[in-house]
Amino acid sequence: MLTEVQEQAPRQMAPGTIAATKVEYYQIPLAEVLSDARHGDHTHFELLVFRIRCSDGLEGVGYTYTGGRGGRAIYSLLKDDIQPLLEGRDSSEIAAIWEDIQSHLHYVGRGGLLSFAVSAVDIALWDLRCKRLNLPLWKVAGGAGNTTKCYAGGIDLNFSESKLLDNISGYLSRGFNAVKIKVGKEDYREDVARVEAVRQLIGDDVTFMVDANYSMTIEQAVRFGRAVDHCAITWFEEPTIPDDYTGYGRIADAINIPLAMGENLHTVHEFTYAIAQAKLGFLQPDASNIGGVTGWLKVAELAYAYNLPVCSHGMHELHVSLMASQPHAGYLEVHSFPIDEYTTRPIVLENGRAQASNEPGTGVTFDETLLRPHLVMHT
Amino acid sequence: MLTEVQEQAPRQMAPGTIAATKVEYYQIPLAEVLSDARHGDHTHFELLVFRIRCSDGLEGVGYTYTGGRGGRAIYSLLKDDIQPLLEGRDSSEIAAIWEDIQSHLHYVGRGGLLSFAVSAVDIALWDLRCKRLNLPLWKVAGGAGNTTKCYAGGIDLNFSESKLLDNISGYLSRGFNAVKIKVGKEDYREDVARVEAVRQLIGDDVTFMVDANYSMTIEQAVRFGRAVDHCAITWFEEPTIPDDYTGYGRIADAINIPLAMGENLHTVHEFTYAIAQAKLGFLQPDASNIGGVTGWLKVAELAYAYNLPVCSHGMHELHVSLMASQPHAGYLEVHSFPIDEYTTRPIVLENGRAQASNEPGTGVTFDETLLRPHLVMHT
Repeated sequence: MLTEVQEQAPRQMAPGTIAATKVEYYQIPLAEVLSDARHGDHTHFELLVFRIRCSDGLEGVGYTYTGGRGGRAIYSLLKDDIQPLLEGRDSSEIAAIWEDIQSHLHYVGRGGLLSFAVSAVDIALWDLRCKRLNLPLWKVAGGAGNTTKCYAGGIDLNFSESKLLDNISGYLSRGFNAVKIKVGKEDYREDVARVEAVRQLIGDDVTFMVDANYSMTIEQAVRFGRAVDHCAITWFEEPTIPDDYTGYGRIADAINIPLAMGENLHTVHEFTYAIAQAKLGFLQPDASNIGGVTGWLKVAELAYAYNLPVCSHGMHELHVSLMASQPHAGYLEVHSFPIDEYTTRPIVLENGRAQASNEPGTGVTFDETLLRPHLVMHT
Repeated sequence: MLTEVQEQAPRQMAPGTIAATKVEYYQIPLAEVLSDARHGDHTHFELLVFRIRCSDGLEGVGYTYTGGRGGRAIYSLLKDDIQPLLEGRDSSEIAAIWEDIQSHLHYVGRGGLLSFAVSAVDIALWDLRCKRLNLPLWKVAGGAGNTTKCYAGGIDLNFSESKLLDNISGYLSRGFNAVKIKVGKEDYREDVARVEAVRQLIGDDVTFMVDANYSMTIEQAVRFGRAVDHCAITWFEEPTIPDDYTGYGRIADAINIPLAMGENLHTVHEFTYAIAQAKLGFLQPDASNIGGVTGWLKVAELAYAYNLPVCSHGMHELHVSLMASQPHAGYLEVHSFPIDEYTTRPIVLENGRAQASNEPGTGVTFDETLLRPHLVMHT
């Protein structure tokens, strides 16, 4: 009879059971219009915040962002298709939930927009995991350390040369010792002149990268890459469309500057093709669009296995902890979308290195007073 | 002064200028629950209809569909991000509009959900193009002919063996001479038994394909493929995850049945990788998720160049015209989602071949009386 009694007893709800979830959609204006070679003008960014409350009251917060477009479709995926899957699930079974969402929406998924939605959920689950362990993300995700090399990533293609140089000087005075600028001007000689001017400004000891936002043909990329060979460029990011892995390989063979990409690769499988064919020097997964911490760590392990430094794109307030956690970290991008300014802990630099939060959780706590004015809709 | 006068004159609106667009979202129940090995149970499908009205009153109708999930996110992309781009554009500049949408949403795109939204717009533009030419799609898209080989594609993994055989008999009595069944049962010997039973039922002269919906490991696919070697299978569709191109190549090397895939490849670039690495026998683009007629024709031209038959997945009421238009067409899938039953012209078979519409346009005209009860929201 014992079995029967057990079966009839009310099923105990484990403390980590997901009791409720909430989606919030924000449009946050930028202080000035930021432009690159392919995405045009950015006037604001979209922020999607996903909150999970467990049966014992513990709350985890995840998020993703866009450059200003498509965010309401991510909101729909979270609200209409993903929220109903989560209630009652054990929040500690992250891999199971991650795979189930990917599987549930596979026909409209396999990367693209779905990866952004999965990221927001996954980051909330990792926030919970870290809080339950009472540990910061840099320890839970790996534990290699709590600081990382970093660089300031400008979105500055529309800046005049003097404004570009002022902006770079501003980065240096904030304590950065590595900077990145956009390239992809209609006349490549203008790009070369800007690169030379920046190198002259920063001297020989500051790390310097360039980013074309996939605006060039292979021939244009090779011509530009050769023309700035004397400027000690650490990497040339997204010279051409991210889909053309073998084209990247041709560029890599023809110039002396290592290539980097990752912000537009939204599945782990896409990174495997890139590693196999694109002859990259740096991988740049973005936890906001590769499936959260889970997806980012999968790519980090691939990078480790293939002897490549793992870097990051965007959302530096979160990536600082992931990058710090890894023994083979390259450079954290400190991005021009200032999500961190809407948190209680904007980026902290010491001696040019970014410092991970030591608080339990992802280290990202939104300042509700700052965010609230930009809320457009929520569930 | 002539120049000035010309500049000051009101710009004449060309007759093909896009004056207004409309998005409709439907949920259409299936007559019975249909299951495959990975997408689970289908109880309904989602239909997104996109209407474009030109300044001269001509209307084009496009659409896309899903297996029941993610459709509201496609609705959001169309409504929030794509509709604002279209008004005032010249509807005849299809390639420009296609590229502009892809570019505008690139950061959240590169396949995935965006490809579904682009498809709906593109099909409406092709409908307009055909109507302006006063020609049917099969002529405008190529003109090789107006009929195509076809097969009935069952979604029948949950059918008992006797129901499976009844279903296949039904296909034969409707005039099909080619059929496809789902495989991917937990015990592969059950799959083998079902394949053998179907082959016995249909005899030696009916074409027979199988579809695992990417449910198998490479080893499972090889074991199954070898076990049905005696059943004269025309293709083995999606044995494993569509991301693993080289895995497909390993399966192709190990068995005697040609492989097929395409429904889950949502950019032309993904087809280039598949062609280069997956050793496919058949390509199966779906105009509803590869970027409409424009995307489907790009893949069809790749197939031609690489000496592969082009096939189709889903939405047979449209694909019948695209398949008929191509000199290297393989088999049109007549899908189990009966979109055609909500149009004025359900699929027409003659001597086992599907017949394209000869009406100007895509040949797909929705029956509003039948659709209206399933409308959930619209702009």
